Amino acid sequence: MQSLRVNGERLWNTVMETARFGGTPGGGITRLTLSDEDRDVRDWFVARCKAIGCTVTVDEVGNIFARRSGFDNARRPIAFGSHLDTQPSGGKFDGVAGVLVGLEMLRTLDENHVTTTAPLELINWTNEEGSRFAPTMIASGAFAGIYSTEYAHGLKDRQGKTFRGELERIGYLGDRPAGDHTLAACFELHIEQGPILDQEGITIGVVTGAQGQRWYDVGVQGRASHAGSTPMHVRRDAMLACARITDGVNRIALSHAPSGMATVGLVEVRPNSRNVIPGDVFFTVDLRHPDGDVLMGMDREFEALASGVAHATRTKISIECVLDLRPTRFDERCVSMVREAAERLGYSHRDIVSGPGHDTVNVARVAPAAMVFVPCVEGISHNEVEAARQEDLTAGANVLLHAVLEYDRGIANAV
Amino acid sequence: MQSLRVNGERLWNTVMETARFGGTPGGGITRLTLSDEDRDVRDWFVARCKAIGCTVTVDEVGNIFARRSGFDNARRPIAFGSHLDTQPSGGKFDGVAGVLVGLEMLRTLDENHVTTTAPLELINWTNEEGSRFAPTMIASGAFAGIYSTEYAHGLKDRQGKTFRGELERIGYLGDRPAGDHTLAACFELHIEQGPILDQEGITIGVVTGAQGQRWYDVGVQGRASHAGSTPMHVRRDAMLACARITDGVNRIALSHAPSGMATVGLVEVRPNSRNVIPGDVFFTVDLRHPDGDVLMGMDREFEALASGVAHATRTKISIECVLDLRPTRFDERCVSMVREAAERLGYSHRDIVSGPGHDTVNVARVAPAAMVFVPCVEGISHNEVEAARQEDLTAGANVLLHAVLEYDRGIANAV
Repeated sequence: MQSLRVNGERLWNTVMETARFGGTPGGGITRLTLSDEDRDVRDWFVARCKAIGCTVTVDEVGNIFARRSGFDNARRPIAFGSHLDTQPSGGKFDGVAGVLVGLEMLRTLDENHVTTTAPLELINWTNEEGSRFAPTMIASGAFAGIYSTEYAHGLKDRQGKTFRGELERIGYLGDRPAGDHTLAACFELHIEQGPILDQEGITIGVVTGAQGQRWYDVGVQGRASHAGSTPMHVRRDAMLACARITDGVNRIALSHAPSGMATVGLVEVRPNSRNVIPGDVFFTVDLRHPDGDVLMGMDREFEALASGVAHATRTKISIECVLDLRPTRFDERCVSMVREAAERLGYSHRDIVSGPGHDTVNVARVAPAAMVFVPCVEGISHNEVEAARQEDLTAGANVLLHAVLEYDRGIANAV
Repeated sequence: MQSLRVNGERLWNTVMETARFGGTPGGGITRLTLSDEDRDVRDWFVARCKAIGCTVTVDEVGNIFARRSGFDNARRPIAFGSHLDTQPSGGKFDGVAGVLVGLEMLRTLDENHVTTTAPLELINWTNEEGSRFAPTMIASGAFAGIYSTEYAHGLKDRQGKTFRGELERIGYLGDRPAGDHTLAACFELHIEQGPILDQEGITIGVVTGAQGQRWYDVGVQGRASHAGSTPMHVRRDAMLACARITDGVNRIALSHAPSGMATVGLVEVRPNSRNVIPGDVFFTVDLRHPDGDVLMGMDREFEALASGVAHATRTKISIECVLDLRPTRFDERCVSMVREAAERLGYSHRDIVSGPGHDTVNVARVAPAAMVFVPCVEGISHNEVEAARQEDLTAGANVLLHAVLEYDRGIANAV
């Protein structure tokens, strides 16, 4: 068992094979959640899991569970997985790598005739990205009891299509209630999406937890008027308000260096015409910090900033917090199993706190959990040029495989 | 002749009748140039002009000329008109009023059996707004020799459709070369689109000229990356650069108060996802000032601003000037005919400089020209709630009618 290794070549090939679902000319993937492309990769995934004997079920928020039997199927499963959806113009590895590493682990166990004590469960979580339906990680959140199914079903994309309607349309509105079963543990491999491992030349990130993050929807209501005949002093320029808040939250993040982060990633201007002063602007703000108290301080600074900008620009500004993730510490036993697997397998490793949120951060509320990071080149992610190395993916898969086997051995020994 | 008056009720009804082409629930109009809605209102317009005996021709940039015969049809026509296209979510009067006032003038002459010495020509200019195809006023510019027909034909909207292709699609790619005939004079009635006449309670604005304006396309190239794992100090945030320039051009305009103006009206963010640092932003800048030297000074300040922002945000910023309108002074004789008509008819009036550009500002390069402004409520334009009063439109139509008749009398007397 200690000599068991995944097939790195096969793993890499599946990554390249699935990259064609929503593949972009720039070498990335646009596979927004519940799109036709998402349906196509899900169909591919389900077929591959069934081909190695897994039982596949889907819950009412579209999460896919591929279960591999153990010796004792009354036991709670040891779970691992990630997400197959991507950002618009996203990369080939974000999320995808974690699901396909899970598939490779099951294939490796299958061809080596290994049966675990507990059943194993490979999971594809719906809508990790949150770029089509906010908030992010809605379906792992529903699984973990953070959101109700009704809340998830009612979410609308910017075109007004509902989450439930799109689940139904692509054939992934399952019948299992969200969170209808508990997990013995939950693991996830993901590319780091930051520069630390790549810069330090380290293969494995042992993720000890995740920073806190808060997402906001911001609406600015000004007054659309002619750009050539409306004197400056009577304008109510919604874009000017957006600009000052964008610059302001940047300063807030810098004042909490080095860990504070602030991003305005999505902006919609109406009527969006070059000789019309914008009357309405919708935009998003993303604030992060590993310390929950500092994050709440940034929240208060942002509110004060917006209030001042509204007054100065004679606009109305509404702010809604649509995601509130407190900093997370993963389960110490799960984390140490990841660390020890990396050590035993001879891979360089370091502890790391996740910048992004992940589905397993949600699941950590209801099950022991941990994550494995592998380097991504130059730390670039959410970008078509996002890249990971085959040897690092292979190493990560082996670490995850042995952490899971070790966790299973602990279950067997406890009997 | 001095007692001749337009039918204000009929004029108002035609404004309301044409407002249904592209009418919005909010009481405005979305009738982008060369759209299906633009075709529909053009068809309506052509039919109404033919119904009163006009000869209708179309040039190769889609300008529509409805000619009413005079006693001496070898003479150059006295022209008047405006545009039937609107902004996205624009109002019912911007442009439309000038065309329909022209139609009402022709109808009034027709039913009173008045024949002028020179022929009259009512013109609908293509793409005044410039919101679908930049730059603005492209077809009056082609008429005036500012742009070549090839340049106009090659313009693309943001979806990549060409100006020529869309002209052809809606059936308004005419066979007259642009600018194939000269005009004895050109007049235009327009709502002010600013607050001065409305605030001062004055009925007629005698437009003596137009301020200068410069339009820029600005492209910011940063690097798309993950909002949760890219440290602030390594970011290349294209939206942050856009925000700082937006705030900066606002300050530039304010430093040239009260006449300086600056607007960022159109912003497109890529990939436009809330947890991705924007990698590319395209946006527009509109600078205006009545003094050409000051305007060029604002241009230099803007360039310096952008250069500093590019350096500070580690982004690449490209700036292209896509419209360069120098300040314009209208023909003194035409202007005085407008002023004297207002005076004779007993309407309150004042001289005014136009904030917006207008087709007749282009035509003023090749023909004697002047304009009539009527008040727009609270100065709000490029907005669904844009409003004008029936009595003001009627007054403006009567002023324009008598200015044209006076100009024609001058031609007759000079014989």
